[in-house]
Amino acid sequence: MTNTSLVGLGDVLLVTIQGELSDRDALTLQEELTGRVAEISARGVLIDISGLEVVDSFLARTLHDIAGACALLAARTVVVGMRPEVAITLVELGLTLPGLQTALTVSRGLSLLGADPGQS
Amino acid sequence: MTNTSLVGLGDVLLVTIQGELSDRDALTLQEELTGRVAEISARGVLIDISGLEVVDSFLARTLHDIAGACALLAARTVVVGMRPEVAITLVELGLTLPGLQTALTVSRGLSLLGADPGQS
Repeated sequence: MTNTSLVGLGDVLLVTIQGELSDRDALTLQEELTGRVAEISARGVLIDISGLEVVDSFLARTLHDIAGACALLAARTVVVGMRPEVAITLVELGLTLPGLQTALTVSRGLSLLGADPGQS
Repeated sequence: MTNTSLVGLGDVLLVTIQGELSDRDALTLQEELTGRVAEISARGVLIDISGLEVVDSFLARTLHDIAGACALLAARTVVVGMRPEVAITLVELGLTLPGLQTALTVSRGLSLLGADPGQS
């Protein structure tokens, strides 16, 4: 996978997307990530997209699918670091990412995952 | 019923699906399981699908219906052992199993049922 890194923080997986992803990379990320969630029995997934200036509809949908698959694997997904201009574009495209939680920073995302372990 | 086993663990029923189920088998499982839930006043049902490489839309819907029927019989249903590739396929099919709780392993599923007896 280019432009992404995947690090385990206890039972939370931190995915950092450092640059634009091709559609193929996005799908590879989805597969690797769900595999790792099952492998380490992750309780939560943080996806840091602060490195992205653009989120296209394919990536938005993939993020949504990742959250759905992780939910089926009993892990919660939080997208962190979305830029304001990305948020505006997504809303203009009608992509409001239902079912996906967001937080502004990684530490806030972590506390969001830690604050409510009952749902894991 | 072929390919399935049903074991009582105290007031929890553990259903193990060992191989692919025909639609008829899935319906038989639904009938037998709800019958047993009422018979032993089960508090929870664990359905282990780790033996399944594929979950088709019929089985996904049957699992959803089983959870609904068990909820009406005052038992909570937890699906455990879903493979990552199954989760991805279900999400792509739009089948996110709303109302169904999931856990990665049988022991986590058991603690999920035990941890929150108030909802039973």
